[in-house]
Amino acid sequence: MPLSEYTLRRRVMFHETDSAGIVHFSNYFRYMEEAEHALWRAAGLSVASRGANVGLPRVSAACDYHRPLKFEDEFDARIRIVSIREKSMRYVCTLTKGDEKIATGTVTVVCVSKDEHGEMKARPFPPDIASRFEVSAEAEAEA
Amino acid sequence: MPLSEYTLRRRVMFHETDSAGIVHFSNYFRYMEEAEHALWRAAGLSVASRGANVGLPRVSAACDYHRPLKFEDEFDARIRIVSIREKSMRYVCTLTKGDEKIATGTVTVVCVSKDEHGEMKARPFPPDIASRFEVSAEAEAEA
Amino acid sequence: MPLSEYTLRRRVMFHETDSAGIVHFSNYFRYMEEAEHALWRAAGLSVASRGANVGLPRVSAACDYHRPLKFEDEFDARIRIVSIREKSMRYVCTLTKGDEKIATGTVTVVCVSKDEHGEMKARPFPPDIASRFEVSAEAEAEA
Amino acid sequence: MPLSEYTLRRRVMFHETDSAGIVHFSNYFRYMEEAEHALWRAAGLSVASRGANVGLPRVSAACDYHRPLKFEDEFDARIRIVSIREKSMRYVCTLTKGDEKIATGTVTVVCVSKDEHGEMKARPFPPDIASRFEVSAEAEAEA
Repeated sequence: MPLSEYTLRRRVMFHETDSAGIVHFSNYFRYMEEAEHALWRAAGLSVASRGANVGLPRVSAACDYHRPLKFEDEFDARIRIVSIREKSMRYVCTLTKGDEKIATGTVTVVCVSKDEHGEMKARPFPPDIASRFEVSAEAEAEA
Repeated sequence: MPLSEYTLRRRVMFHETDSAGIVHFSNYFRYMEEAEHALWRAAGLSVASRGANVGLPRVSAACDYHRPLKFEDEFDARIRIVSIREKSMRYVCTLTKGDEKIATGTVTVVCVSKDEHGEMKARPFPPDIASRFEVSAEAEAEA
Repeated sequence: MPLSEYTLRRRVMFHETDSAGIVHFSNYFRYMEEAEHALWRAAGLSVASRGANVGLPRVSAACDYHRPLKFEDEFDARIRIVSIREKSMRYVCTLTKGDEKIATGTVTVVCVSKDEHGEMKARPFPPDIASRFEVSAEAEAEA
Repeated sequence: MPLSEYTLRRRVMFHETDSAGIVHFSNYFRYMEEAEHALWRAAGLSVASRGANVGLPRVSAACDYHRPLKFEDEFDARIRIVSIREKSMRYVCTLTKGDEKIATGTVTVVCVSKDEHGEMKARPFPPDIASRFEVSAEAEAEA
């Protein structure tokens, strides 16, 4: 059955905080990517099984910050697929700590292979990858 | 004279790359923040001189990725102020490598102080800070 | 019952790799610290319960690298206390992936408080902290 | 003329600090590596000119921490070659801020190439690399 979302539980690590006493804003993008990779593994697609030559560089990423996270805070990063196209995919990721909304992000990735010169070229998702994902019902309803 | 922009020259460090062979996308947000801090220092506002109790958490950040950066690439991060409000400021940052456009980002920061409980509260930029910055002429023209 | 060791299971995240295709060597020190913090939490000492004013800066850290780790590798970081003194503690941490030895590290931390000027000063571990840890039997046997 | 050392001037970036208000200890290893790469570039060996297939994984790294660094601190990372062998090289790196000693580290790297299976194999430094470096006179004197 195709997957459309995944929720990763995670704890803030000390090296992710900065001297303002909170998680550095750049790390929220790492949290989103970790949730994305967990979704892919849940779909049976570890980096090995999806083929080392299929890459997923980001074409855009954005985040709205609602409340800070601190060292040792436990939070959930819930990632949902909100759009699937031939060569790209868009996610929305919400970070929450209990009932508190921490952040909301969006990321668009494009499927690439490396050509003979080592340059990345956009390409359609291989069928074995495309068949494992679908847009989340929530996103369908919102559309 | 108030400042409205700054260009930081920077080289990609090895630990900023990932196993796709390019700079990890989260690091672009660090590059933008480095350019922002260089702008503040150029305006005479190091962390010490601006007062340790004035913080600048991000309320939103976004980046469009045009081309990858690799280890040892030299690039410019040019940050411009595109909006100044009572308690917040918005930047646009463009990354270029020679003639190539690498990325375009936007970041909105809010001025905060910590209250007696250590909680961050939004507050107007102190006059000594506000007087050192202005919106870039380019942004004025675009508005 | 006092604790002397902890084993943290962890997966390599993409942003921890570098363009040599393996985990950047600096991240091994982060893995060791994560295992250390997990040990402290297992001993009932989260950052909140141990008192925000007790810090644990490192006075030395070292690592021998045996084999590389790659993206999505699962590994164990086993940290053991090998020495406890009035104001400092020494750990040995071994990283393994299945049967493979990945790395062996040592870290020495010192207990500090901040004085009225915000400067860190070494101090004895508070009794409530000291009572929760002991040197590992293995280390005793080696001594 | 062969090189034996290099001094890199560097400023602490915000994302390198942690919520103890100082540079995270793992980042000292990144500073040392940055100084090492600057030394190699000074010797005419950027990653491109030294050949993409020659890698320099670390076999050991260690650091003694004397004093903390804070956001915006300017410091020098002086790296010296203290030993050169057929397939490995050892550095000592000292970090100083003005007259203050901040940290002292050592790093041993080994020269590798990737074989046909993508596995890293130790190999002698190519002559074009070996000829560009020599052990520092200071290290000679200490030996």
